[in-house]
Amino acid sequence: MRSQDLASHTAALLDCEESLYKQVALRISELIEHGTIRPGDKVPSVRRCSEQQGVSIATVIQAYRLLEDRGLIEGRPQSGYYVRAQRWAPPPEPGISKPTPRPVEVRVSDLIMQVVKAGRNPKLVRLGASLPCPELLPLEELQRTMSAVGRRSPTAANTYDPPPGNLALRTQVARRAMEAGCTLAPDDIITTVGVTEALNLCLRAVAKPGDVIAIESPTFFGILQIIESLGMRVCEIPTYPREGVCLDELDKRLQCCRIKACVFTLNFSNPLGSCMPDEKKQRLVKMLAERQIPLIEDDLYGNLGFSPTRPKVAKAFDEEGLVLLCDSFTKTLSPGCRVGWVAPGRFKQQVEFLKFVNTAANPALPQMAIAEFLQNGGFDHHLRKIRRFYSNQMQCMSAAVSRYFPFGTKATRPTGGMCLWVELPKNVDSLAVFHQAMAANISTAPGPLFSAKQKYQNFIRLNFGNPWTEKIENAVRELGAIAQRIAG
Amino acid sequence: MRSQDLASHTAALLDCEESLYKQVALRISELIEHGTIRPGDKVPSVRRCSEQQGVSIATVIQAYRLLEDRGLIEGRPQSGYYVRAQRWAPPPEPGISKPTPRPVEVRVSDLIMQVVKAGRNPKLVRLGASLPCPELLPLEELQRTMSAVGRRSPTAANTYDPPPGNLALRTQVARRAMEAGCTLAPDDIITTVGVTEALNLCLRAVAKPGDVIAIESPTFFGILQIIESLGMRVCEIPTYPREGVCLDELDKRLQCCRIKACVFTLNFSNPLGSCMPDEKKQRLVKMLAERQIPLIEDDLYGNLGFSPTRPKVAKAFDEEGLVLLCDSFTKTLSPGCRVGWVAPGRFKQQVEFLKFVNTAANPALPQMAIAEFLQNGGFDHHLRKIRRFYSNQMQCMSAAVSRYFPFGTKATRPTGGMCLWVELPKNVDSLAVFHQAMAANISTAPGPLFSAKQKYQNFIRLNFGNPWTEKIENAVRELGAIAQRIAG
Repeated sequence: MRSQDLASHTAALLDCEESLYKQVALRISELIEHGTIRPGDKVPSVRRCSEQQGVSIATVIQAYRLLEDRGLIEGRPQSGYYVRAQRWAPPPEPGISKPTPRPVEVRVSDLIMQVVKAGRNPKLVRLGASLPCPELLPLEELQRTMSAVGRRSPTAANTYDPPPGNLALRTQVARRAMEAGCTLAPDDIITTVGVTEALNLCLRAVAKPGDVIAIESPTFFGILQIIESLGMRVCEIPTYPREGVCLDELDKRLQCCRIKACVFTLNFSNPLGSCMPDEKKQRLVKMLAERQIPLIEDDLYGNLGFSPTRPKVAKAFDEEGLVLLCDSFTKTLSPGCRVGWVAPGRFKQQVEFLKFVNTAANPALPQMAIAEFLQNGGFDHHLRKIRRFYSNQMQCMSAAVSRYFPFGTKATRPTGGMCLWVELPKNVDSLAVFHQAMAANISTAPGPLFSAKQKYQNFIRLNFGNPWTEKIENAVRELGAIAQRIAG
Repeated sequence: MRSQDLASHTAALLDCEESLYKQVALRISELIEHGTIRPGDKVPSVRRCSEQQGVSIATVIQAYRLLEDRGLIEGRPQSGYYVRAQRWAPPPEPGISKPTPRPVEVRVSDLIMQVVKAGRNPKLVRLGASLPCPELLPLEELQRTMSAVGRRSPTAANTYDPPPGNLALRTQVARRAMEAGCTLAPDDIITTVGVTEALNLCLRAVAKPGDVIAIESPTFFGILQIIESLGMRVCEIPTYPREGVCLDELDKRLQCCRIKACVFTLNFSNPLGSCMPDEKKQRLVKMLAERQIPLIEDDLYGNLGFSPTRPKVAKAFDEEGLVLLCDSFTKTLSPGCRVGWVAPGRFKQQVEFLKFVNTAANPALPQMAIAEFLQNGGFDHHLRKIRRFYSNQMQCMSAAVSRYFPFGTKATRPTGGMCLWVELPKNVDSLAVFHQAMAANISTAPGPLFSAKQKYQNFIRLNFGNPWTEKIENAVRELGAIAQRIAG
């Protein structure tokens, strides 16, 4: 068994609600992870472990069962428990995507709304939504900050704070942008209600109804909905599962499709989890600048890479003010605060006007609280923690897909974010999977949501934002069984 | 002097920072108000008052000077102070408005943004913005509720709360709607980022770029900006200064102008402060229903009427789901929370979709806090307090305009809200007044902001949301002098 895989199991155990048997299981899994006991070795007998750890026989049995369920050890009749020798390999990767080459109208919102609404049932094991789990966020700390700020400045917290928005927050955002290779002044930034509003404002600032917007294919369905609601059309650009947008294909489309703007998620795209290398970002920015085409860059997941080095944003290479960088704290700090921002480059005046007209102002207190939270430090520490967590989670999900899904299933190898894009065998209709999974109280995001013309019929997106538990493991197993039944 | 006028002075004194001499002045003004000392009567001598009230001679002198400044008493040489005998009459009212009868494109946003941005200078005496003064709002109480709610439910407060939004808040809103004559269920309501977002969503749900929207003339410039930003056109309907939209004129326009929807502020419109009688609202709803034309009803000021009886909303007469009622807590509780809502009738699905697409969700905590604040009672008590306050303020502003503005000035007689619409003599250019007033650190809202084609060149809107102080009195006096100079 690979150490990566082990690490994921260890982390999953760590994130379980701590109880005695889990602590024991954790210690044993650490022994395995560190190579103290190796694949094929016998683990200490139940009695010996009970003595060593000072716990009851029953507790050890419970711990070993848990390790067995996790696939870390196996019981052999009349002999005891052994470290499993199997190696886990991630599923093979999908190829480059092949969307319709010509511009098309977007007609997917009705399906999206059905799926999104169905997915809100609290009984579900939610593998469908790309949301961070609340337990992972510093909510109490943030809440304390919010109370303190509100107590200190009740007037400011309740006063109308017109665009461009809270100065303290914009200052913090500008400081942090340096890590993404970007030099921004507070005045370059406008705060928004999440990235959703930022994307709306940017699209409205640079394009009109009927205009063609280049997007990644597959792309986050929220982007498709915004474009559909604005009456714009899309040109879907093929993507590689690791590096995202294929620049050569983009170049071809730029020559023939009258593209008015691009909306790309270059860092840890949703659903692929792909990340465009920085030098390709530079080429992309140059390519678009030559044609004076604006790039709306959605960097929502940019802080959630699994590697310690943060990738740059395309905005870092923007010399002409053509990149409109959008980001938010909804995935890293608080989905409920809805605090996002945009650095719209040369389109600032228009975006600021549209912000004023669209929602007049951002709520004041959440901005003040997040500004103070950032200023007090601790955000980077928090980011390191959740990156590690998501990295482990991704391996758990990938391993589970490898274990339970039908032969021929492929999956991306995300280097950040919280989504896995899974390609099922060709004859498996992901909408059928979705419906059958819903009947089993499991939500998924079926592939057709991620394309203007509802392609990707045999793909699903799985969210690995929640701590790995038996419930989730079982849900993925059940999903695999459903896909297997449909595959026949 | 009329008792209304006296009441306004009394209230103005009440709202001053309380100090000894102000308390003395207050007691004397109450004696005048109650008729204990009448116009022409001598007020107690300084020495006698000092003995009666148990304060120093200096304090009484200060108090009498304040009453003199306020125009309540006058000093007569060698004789003492007397209650002033002059009566105050409000300025005459403007007539029905006469906008361009045909549909027009809206081209006023650039001017609006210039004025709005200039008006943000904190040094200004702000008579230009229609904002409640923070001292009047229960901010500390609201803030305590917010902290308590956040402490109790940090997860809910920071979790993504998708449309239609917080159920507890929608329940409270539905309950309160009964007072406006409306039967709403929580499920009829969608929460929004203020009325601004609500109006955006409604307009997008019922009309397309190029469509004609009927609006009141003059109308709040924010509505004009939204319509301009959506590429729609307007048909401006004449209004009466007391009752708002002229229904006969509307009827004519409906017959010839292909009106796609109406956006009206029937209760205490901004800038007129007019209120359409309920029976006319009923006629309006019927008239539009016959043609199946949606009415987007902006009831932002509906709770701010000066009379104890709340006017109904047009939605109360809506049998076909054609009225989209928009409201918000920004003028009554907290501008900074940005919590608004819409009851979109038969357009609910489309509005909910657009809300999801426009900002994804409303911030969670402000909704929870306002829901709890409403549930705990106290909102009605608060409303009674601020209505009384605004009523008094309106009289102060109206009296000051009467006192200081050039001969021929007219003004509306608002029955609610916080704005006075002032018609200057025909040859006074309100943009010139605006610029000269800005040079004197006074902000105003010039008339051209309130019309698609920048009419109302000799009108200004004055906000009376801030407690009446000498600074404000002086600013209005200065404004009057500026207008007088321009009038020549």
